[in-house]
Amino acid sequence: MDTKVMLDTIWVLLTAMLVFFMNLGFAMVESGFTQAKNCVNILAKNFVVFAVSSLGFLLLGWGLMFGDGTSFSGTQGLFMLNGCDNSPATGSAYKGVYSSLSWAAVPLFAKFFFQLVFCGTAATIVSGAVAERIKYKTFIIFAFFMTMFVYPIIGHWIWGGGWLSRLGMLDFAGSTVVHSVGGWAALSGALLLGPRFNKYGPEGKTRAIPGHSIPLATIGTFVLWLGWFGFNPGSTMALNPMVISHVLLVTNTAAAAAVLSSTTTSWLLLGKPDIGMTLNGCLAGLVAITAPCAFVSLQSSLLIGLIAGGLVVLSVIGLDRLKVDDPVGAISVHLINGVFGTLCVGLFAQQGITELATVNGLLSGGGWHLFVIQVIGVLACGVFVFTLSSLAWLILKVTVGIRVSLQEEIIGLDIGEHGNSAYPEFVTRKPGYSFQIYNQEQRGRT
Amino acid sequence: MDTKVMLDTIWVLLTAMLVFFMNLGFAMVESGFTQAKNCVNILAKNFVVFAVSSLGFLLLGWGLMFGDGTSFSGTQGLFMLNGCDNSPATGSAYKGVYSSLSWAAVPLFAKFFFQLVFCGTAATIVSGAVAERIKYKTFIIFAFFMTMFVYPIIGHWIWGGGWLSRLGMLDFAGSTVVHSVGGWAALSGALLLGPRFNKYGPEGKTRAIPGHSIPLATIGTFVLWLGWFGFNPGSTMALNPMVISHVLLVTNTAAAAAVLSSTTTSWLLLGKPDIGMTLNGCLAGLVAITAPCAFVSLQSSLLIGLIAGGLVVLSVIGLDRLKVDDPVGAISVHLINGVFGTLCVGLFAQQGITELATVNGLLSGGGWHLFVIQVIGVLACGVFVFTLSSLAWLILKVTVGIRVSLQEEIIGLDIGEHGNSAYPEFVTRKPGYSFQIYNQEQRGRT
Amino acid sequence: MDTKVMLDTIWVLLTAMLVFFMNLGFAMVESGFTQAKNCVNILAKNFVVFAVSSLGFLLLGWGLMFGDGTSFSGTQGLFMLNGCDNSPATGSAYKGVYSSLSWAAVPLFAKFFFQLVFCGTAATIVSGAVAERIKYKTFIIFAFFMTMFVYPIIGHWIWGGGWLSRLGMLDFAGSTVVHSVGGWAALSGALLLGPRFNKYGPEGKTRAIPGHSIPLATIGTFVLWLGWFGFNPGSTMALNPMVISHVLLVTNTAAAAAVLSSTTTSWLLLGKPDIGMTLNGCLAGLVAITAPCAFVSLQSSLLIGLIAGGLVVLSVIGLDRLKVDDPVGAISVHLINGVFGTLCVGLFAQQGITELATVNGLLSGGGWHLFVIQVIGVLACGVFVFTLSSLAWLILKVTVGIRVSLQEEIIGLDIGEHGNSAYPEFVTRKPGYSFQIYNQEQRGRT
Repeated sequence: MDTKVMLDTIWVLLTAMLVFFMNLGFAMVESGFTQAKNCVNILAKNFVVFAVSSLGFLLLGWGLMFGDGTSFSGTQGLFMLNGCDNSPATGSAYKGVYSSLSWAAVPLFAKFFFQLVFCGTAATIVSGAVAERIKYKTFIIFAFFMTMFVYPIIGHWIWGGGWLSRLGMLDFAGSTVVHSVGGWAALSGALLLGPRFNKYGPEGKTRAIPGHSIPLATIGTFVLWLGWFGFNPGSTMALNPMVISHVLLVTNTAAAAAVLSSTTTSWLLLGKPDIGMTLNGCLAGLVAITAPCAFVSLQSSLLIGLIAGGLVVLSVIGLDRLKVDDPVGAISVHLINGVFGTLCVGLFAQQGITELATVNGLLSGGGWHLFVIQVIGVLACGVFVFTLSSLAWLILKVTVGIRVSLQEEIIGLDIGEHGNSAYPEFVTRKPGYSFQIYNQEQRGRT
Repeated sequence: MDTKVMLDTIWVLLTAMLVFFMNLGFAMVESGFTQAKNCVNILAKNFVVFAVSSLGFLLLGWGLMFGDGTSFSGTQGLFMLNGCDNSPATGSAYKGVYSSLSWAAVPLFAKFFFQLVFCGTAATIVSGAVAERIKYKTFIIFAFFMTMFVYPIIGHWIWGGGWLSRLGMLDFAGSTVVHSVGGWAALSGALLLGPRFNKYGPEGKTRAIPGHSIPLATIGTFVLWLGWFGFNPGSTMALNPMVISHVLLVTNTAAAAAVLSSTTTSWLLLGKPDIGMTLNGCLAGLVAITAPCAFVSLQSSLLIGLIAGGLVVLSVIGLDRLKVDDPVGAISVHLINGVFGTLCVGLFAQQGITELATVNGLLSGGGWHLFVIQVIGVLACGVFVFTLSSLAWLILKVTVGIRVSLQEEIIGLDIGEHGNSAYPEFVTRKPGYSFQIYNQEQRGRT
Repeated sequence: MDTKVMLDTIWVLLTAMLVFFMNLGFAMVESGFTQAKNCVNILAKNFVVFAVSSLGFLLLGWGLMFGDGTSFSGTQGLFMLNGCDNSPATGSAYKGVYSSLSWAAVPLFAKFFFQLVFCGTAATIVSGAVAERIKYKTFIIFAFFMTMFVYPIIGHWIWGGGWLSRLGMLDFAGSTVVHSVGGWAALSGALLLGPRFNKYGPEGKTRAIPGHSIPLATIGTFVLWLGWFGFNPGSTMALNPMVISHVLLVTNTAAAAAVLSSTTTSWLLLGKPDIGMTLNGCLAGLVAITAPCAFVSLQSSLLIGLIAGGLVVLSVIGLDRLKVDDPVGAISVHLINGVFGTLCVGLFAQQGITELATVNGLLSGGGWHLFVIQVIGVLACGVFVFTLSSLAWLILKVTVGIRVSLQEEIIGLDIGEHGNSAYPEFVTRKPGYSFQIYNQEQRGRT
């Protein structure tokens, strides 16, 4: 067996494992940022979603995404990788985009697993925005829909040889394919579900519902940060030392810059360095650098991260003003920064910064060409995913229902949906207990 | 130095690290599924057990398992890898089983570490089933016994050139060697200790004692799922792209299928999708695919996972009816599914599905031959481990004692055994507070 | 591209990722061992510190540490790796120490990232010792100072071709460069801050302030143990099968031995096997083996670990007698055992045990030569770091201030510094609630 194939395979598999581990990251971030009474439900959703993805992507998603077919979707390799083998065909569809990558000889099952963990990520993003009020059953059905249809079709457009890849859209590791796709589906879900009970008061007042466990949220963010070292550098799908080292360092630099800028922004705007903003800032930087990581310089990554960290704070505040209730900030992190990151390719791409960077963006003297393509890609994916998701949520609403009863929401979904309690032995404050009261009590104690 | 050796070594070491990380997984699953008052004790056991394994396997285990010797056990390489070097002898014993593997040139210390982490897994499985009532000291002594004698001898039989490997028994990554060995020792411990105080009421009623932290249990299960990507694909001990990719994907597929089937089964049988069942379902699927992962098709792995997920739910319910008190479900996961997975080799093995698959099982037209060998192996290991463990537990019972006092059990082992409290600042319900009462209170609140 | 470069690069990057993951480990250990009311603050510090390191080491640290320059510090490659490329120059400075290592061809960005995660570790060590009373802003400023000046200069002395490396000091993976540097800065911070309110009573009584979450501390220690498999074996920065296997196994053996000896020591001295001692014992063993891991035998690693585990227990008790308040035991783990480990090189180094071991220590017949050099190195680094850090803390004290107000300390830094609460829904005991009272209550319940 060829040494290069061994090297590429170990790289693909190990980075895929890192991305798999991001499931834990999402589970922790989402449960940490929500209430204890819904914790089992969030964890269950985040756990089951990868099982759903594994089946959905195997049964249909992979074929639609990477099978040869039309400009819209694949038509081969459907159902259990049937008829889809380790031929140049499966490899070449992808190679159309980055011709210098040679992963055709990496075994099909390794490629499949790598792509599967990305699909799972897109599906799990939805979970956070619809948290604390969605029916478990409905979420499972929607996750099947995401991983069997929505994600694979967009994936085909951009990574599978479809129309956007032919147009020249660049999304190296998935700011659009993974993050904004997840984000659009999350937005449509959050809108159709409506806000949580008592989240927005009668006179337009927003009630803060703080997450029940900052340690869990912190674990999650660290795990996601680690996982991104698989997500972005792994997307080379080849052990190319110069490229993977570049991608890794710009990824980390953007995250670090975003941590500092989101912390600073929240310090300035909210008076204190809110840890939720610090953690979401990190994720925002990571999402934003995902599309451009192989195409931009270290200096640009610093700038992209700085902007992303500010953007996420403004977006979280802004969405609350618009009464879009997103308990964990998933829309601000994945949609807003997914779009921002995708546009950054059009702005900052720099020919030759790595061997995969073959065009210049606007700020590198490449003119508007690439930027306009990126805008088209962002809009096309947004319209498609938002429309399709909304349709799906609507159908689910009139059939199985999408929202739990008000009574169940108040008691908590853990008892209602699962018959479990996340912390049965701990004494917790009564449901609906607000952070403001807690603050007052704390102050009163002194 | 040969490139192949470098590649095999990095694969062996990195996958071993993933398996090492499973120690965290077990610690979290077991502590999450038990009570807060015993949490320090569970964590301490799961932490110290790998230290014990590291010494026990170094001092004696490795030599007994992989040293040249008789059909029953090795007799060389005992005591600090003494006299045991990187010779063909140590390699060839193992190579007897899978002749196409060539890991003889991977450094001895790398091979040792890889085997050590498997030994540690077998020992840590016991911890969960004997939780909440075993003396700390006694558990440590038993763990030494497991890793110095019980595990290595079975390991020699199946992986070290012993009589079962000569008979043709196949257990690729240890459904029997690791999981059912741990499971038999766990069963004998649980039986000799008896159930926890007040677990089974006077009129045969079973009292549910819910785990104190579902987030910890979820962290644990994700970490174990990740760790299994080292456990199974790493067991090739060679960077063979086709085989490791195959093993990885069937492992993940079985886990995913088991998650869905255990969730569905508990939904149907218990009325709600209990998250404990979902998590244990995942582990059951992983245990079941461990023996057959290199020998069966993707389709078979889907089926194996589906069955495993159902099996674990039935087993958990069944063991409770039999009044075998296993606080975390370790016996259902590791013993029942370890046996099931080992038998699956005899059923589903398919010649040529990977280059390591050289025989057909019953359902692939290979007749009863392999299946019967697998049954013999399962029975032989079961009788040997159960007998030896029971003997060890009995000796410990009459010497140092195996169970803490009733008073200590009620107060919690954390204070009694360690002088620590896992959560000293949090207000918890009084010991013995039952989930039923909690449920009633929750309902009353509405 | 050369296969060797690919192999070395994947090794460097993956082990660097493991070391990156240690940030999670530190965050969990430190938050678990401190009080719930300061949990957000500890987590925020541990999270932001790696972002700070990423910027600080990029802007200045790398150049000072690895750039060509004087015996005291580098003078090239400052500011965004400017002027510093993948030339033999950057590689040769390091190769001066271990001439058989050839990582010159590993891409600069990979080398940078590897060194960055080590720098981050040094900075995060400080966090624990100054916990529960330091101003957030002050810690951030100090972390910039550490990663831009203190750490890089010591790093240059020992790893960057500076005077200690020319003298022949050996510190394979950083018992001194990383751990005792962090430890000295931690000690000076702890001394200048003074103990926490009410920690030491009027009559010299020490009040135990138990950590609020043993599960978090356990997660952290497991993650750190895993991370060390990157830390030490990765420090070869080349995929040398014999050396990395050796380093990995001695690292694990020292950790395991230290777990057992610290558990036993605390059992003997304190009457019970305190889990805090078990966990810190593990870390102590890991710190102690960090300098000598490539130079000592498996037998020596066992002994080093056994001693380290005892040492940390004595040190924790001793520092409390000296009224040096170190909430998490960071000084005992990183400073005391960092020094001990560095000296162990002078005692146990054994020529030829790996190909990187070219001198003998005292106990291997090499005489006092190496030991004296190690002592000089320990003293020089101690004096330099302690002086410089104390100066920095002093300047911060008279400018921005280093300690929060007494009121804020009593209420908790989470509310005061961040406006957050780590567990807003859980009912906790009132601040200052002591473990002794808890124990009494628990006993009264029976």
